Amino acid sequence: MTKCSIEIAEHSGFCFGVERAIQMALQALKEYENVVTLGPIIHNPQMVQYLQKKGLGCVNSIEEITDQVVIIRSHGITNENYKKLQEKNVIIIDATCPIVKKAQNFAKKLTAKDYQLVILGEKAHPEVEALLSYVDDKSIVVDNPNEKLELDDMKIALIAQTTQSEETFELLGFKLLKMCRELHVVKTICNATKLRQEETRMIAKKVDIMFIVGGKNSANTTRLAEIARQERCESFHIETADEIHNKMFRSNQKVGICAGASTPAWIINNVKNKINKYLCEDNLNV
Amino acid sequence: MTKCSIEIAEHSGFCFGVERAIQMALQALKEYENVVTLGPIIHNPQMVQYLQKKGLGCVNSIEEITDQVVIIRSHGITNENYKKLQEKNVIIIDATCPIVKKAQNFAKKLTAKDYQLVILGEKAHPEVEALLSYVDDKSIVVDNPNEKLELDDMKIALIAQTTQSEETFELLGFKLLKMCRELHVVKTICNATKLRQEETRMIAKKVDIMFIVGGKNSANTTRLAEIARQERCESFHIETADEIHNKMFRSNQKVGICAGASTPAWIINNVKNKINKYLCEDNLNV
Repeated sequence: MTKCSIEIAEHSGFCFGVERAIQMALQALKEYENVVTLGPIIHNPQMVQYLQKKGLGCVNSIEEITDQVVIIRSHGITNENYKKLQEKNVIIIDATCPIVKKAQNFAKKLTAKDYQLVILGEKAHPEVEALLSYVDDKSIVVDNPNEKLELDDMKIALIAQTTQSEETFELLGFKLLKMCRELHVVKTICNATKLRQEETRMIAKKVDIMFIVGGKNSANTTRLAEIARQERCESFHIETADEIHNKMFRSNQKVGICAGASTPAWIINNVKNKINKYLCEDNLNV
Repeated sequence: MTKCSIEIAEHSGFCFGVERAIQMALQALKEYENVVTLGPIIHNPQMVQYLQKKGLGCVNSIEEITDQVVIIRSHGITNENYKKLQEKNVIIIDATCPIVKKAQNFAKKLTAKDYQLVILGEKAHPEVEALLSYVDDKSIVVDNPNEKLELDDMKIALIAQTTQSEETFELLGFKLLKMCRELHVVKTICNATKLRQEETRMIAKKVDIMFIVGGKNSANTTRLAEIARQERCESFHIETADEIHNKMFRSNQKVGICAGASTPAWIINNVKNKINKYLCEDNLNV
């Protein structure tokens, strides 16, 4: 019998904001007919598909919305789109993650105090697009601390997309400290994200191979895969157990599993069972 | 003839705040009799002695003051002492450096906004003692980034004694960034200090031996000596040319001179002439 070791991160799977958005969607489906989200409610295609089967629609632009109930997804919405929605004759259910909302409020407040705002984030991510819609034109998005920076101002504020890594955020803060006279930093990174990232790093240091489970379009899951790779751990970012095959393993390997904030428990479970089958039940082609 | 090279830092000597304090003292001596400072007006014993000869007195406690004109020195004064002075029947001339005053105002503002204030500075320096008198009990003074830090709060503000090094300040900022959720940094370091430090570092990289000229009790001069030593340059912190002797030199040495913000031009000149005599006029015992 091959020796077998699988470690699953405790902080894997649904965070508070995702859980809340899904519960709001399920509740809306009970109360109303014709419920849609503007863009996928969370960045997990399998979960989106599951909700679709329950009757949840998804539109990609405001123009497609007529008389439906509209759920604002966990990543939030731009100020312009929110105003357009209000002008339509629709019921709005706001499932924006409260932590994302808090980041938006900090962004507004800091901009109002005349800081030039720097946001650590992915330029094309809906959360960042929404953040940018609440601030002024001086604000800039930086996706890594090595990016060449040109600041217009000596009074800078720094916040982050909620799923960024704290380490990267601190490095960017240090770089900005050297460039300005006044720096106001607010760590808008969500705590669940931080704990998940720390646990991923800890497990990656111990195991030989790591499966990071979650949507390929999920920013927080992608970050976990990056962290595992930083620790020089062989890592696979997969969406479902279907992507696992026995050629991925060698005998006596220690395996780690971490899942993003939008990965449902059933997918994590399937991944664990599949690994168990290959690694622990002597099914390895070694 | 021995080869001779002496480089004098452009930013040596009196800064704006010191120049202003001395001018205010000289003016007061013209207008009033019985003028005293509370503590030495600047941290340069030779300049203080010069002003003493002109008639400027110096007391070390409020209790010694009776009916004199009192000059508040460039480093500022504690809030308590200011109030005590106001209660006495004396004329107050406030020669606090405007940049120090600005730092005091930032300290007050940040404390009022409920930040726990961290001050990079020397705990026993009069400027820091004055700063501390304007803030609440949570505030702490840190004299280097390697010091063990225990914060009570997750909302921190950071300022510095005006003569600290920017590099040290930025390192402390980076350390604090890792420890809290919100950090508001204001670089209260004076620009003349920054330029003087940068020039000192630049010269120290090029020369073999460095003379840092200024009061042994002068914080900003002491910092220049530290910077020169960081660059592994043989360095002497001297107050006057009397401390220079020819055993300090070897032939063909490149010599640098930098002086602190409270060092008068005549002392810098004497230092230059003495070095010139030993190094450039073949008077070396080599």
